[in-house]
Amino acid sequence: MKKNKALRAKSTEYRAEFLHSLHPCGKTAGYSAMENNFYFMNEAIKEARKGLGEGGIPIGSVLVKNGKIIGRGHNRRVQKKSAILHAEMDCLENAGRLKARDYKKCVIYSTLSPCDMCTGAILLYKIPKVIIGENKTFKGPEAYSKKRGIKIVNLDMRECRNIMSDFILKKPELWNEDIGV
Amino acid sequence: MKKNKALRAKSTEYRAEFLHSLHPCGKTAGYSAMENNFYFMNEAIKEARKGLGEGGIPIGSVLVKNGKIIGRGHNRRVQKKSAILHAEMDCLENAGRLKARDYKKCVIYSTLSPCDMCTGAILLYKIPKVIIGENKTFKGPEAYSKKRGIKIVNLDMRECRNIMSDFILKKPELWNEDIGV
Repeated sequence: MKKNKALRAKSTEYRAEFLHSLHPCGKTAGYSAMENNFYFMNEAIKEARKGLGEGGIPIGSVLVKNGKIIGRGHNRRVQKKSAILHAEMDCLENAGRLKARDYKKCVIYSTLSPCDMCTGAILLYKIPKVIIGENKTFKGPEAYSKKRGIKIVNLDMRECRNIMSDFILKKPELWNEDIGV
Repeated sequence: MKKNKALRAKSTEYRAEFLHSLHPCGKTAGYSAMENNFYFMNEAIKEARKGLGEGGIPIGSVLVKNGKIIGRGHNRRVQKKSAILHAEMDCLENAGRLKARDYKKCVIYSTLSPCDMCTGAILLYKIPKVIIGENKTFKGPEAYSKKRGIKIVNLDMRECRNIMSDFILKKPELWNEDIGV
């Protein structure tokens, strides 16, 4: 029983949940960078699920500065009849107007590889690091981001893939609209 | 006197105004593509001036489909305390949710060369043509856009340059914030 629990905790799929139980208060000191990545990605997943609950497209994002969440958001195409509120855009908008020196200290988390628009926003504000939940159901211009100096870490989480693949299967037209296809 | 008038009308700087007087109703049939470009850019300039009147950053944009304006907007960083409402973004948002087949029939006009974020939105929706007022006060990733198949036409209008250079001189900090510098 104990062994099973340890195995589950070690697997990528359950790591976020596991870390969240260890790391419930958002304090990042004493945790490894990867532990923090899973913690914050779990917050982005909460946003994705919130969006799904509202009848929207389940993609979530958080903006983290010096180990603290300063903005969070989710795709609101359906909810706000919006052409521009992808998760990362909603997150940046909710973080409010920041100075360039603030963005430079930020990491942005997204449950899905950022599209051209969201990548563009990240490039505009020179956010140095992007942590993504997965890029199998959709892959934005990651090579271009890297070429422009952005570090991308793909956590490749089954939970993120499942949320998206379930949604795409259920609402392909809405998904295509969201990515301009 | 007549000669002077004709000369003024011919010069780029006055062409927009001149064409607007000829072309006041927005009907594009019978006008050349370049005449229409100046007509619609003049509408984008109106948006930029509207933004300036509101205390905002004077950049304007219109989205045109089959010769008709279907969306218009201006930078609303100040007015809406927004990190994402650049002119082109506001314009796309005001145009509402469109299908990929609609964007493919569109031309977007902006008084200024689109930044990384706005270029990203144009790439996401595969808007095939971008007409810009100028790119001397700021130049976005035009080479990358072209590489991705977008046609860019720069009208290089003194009016657009003057609006921006006056503004940058008066409010350099606000301008730097807007472009992530």
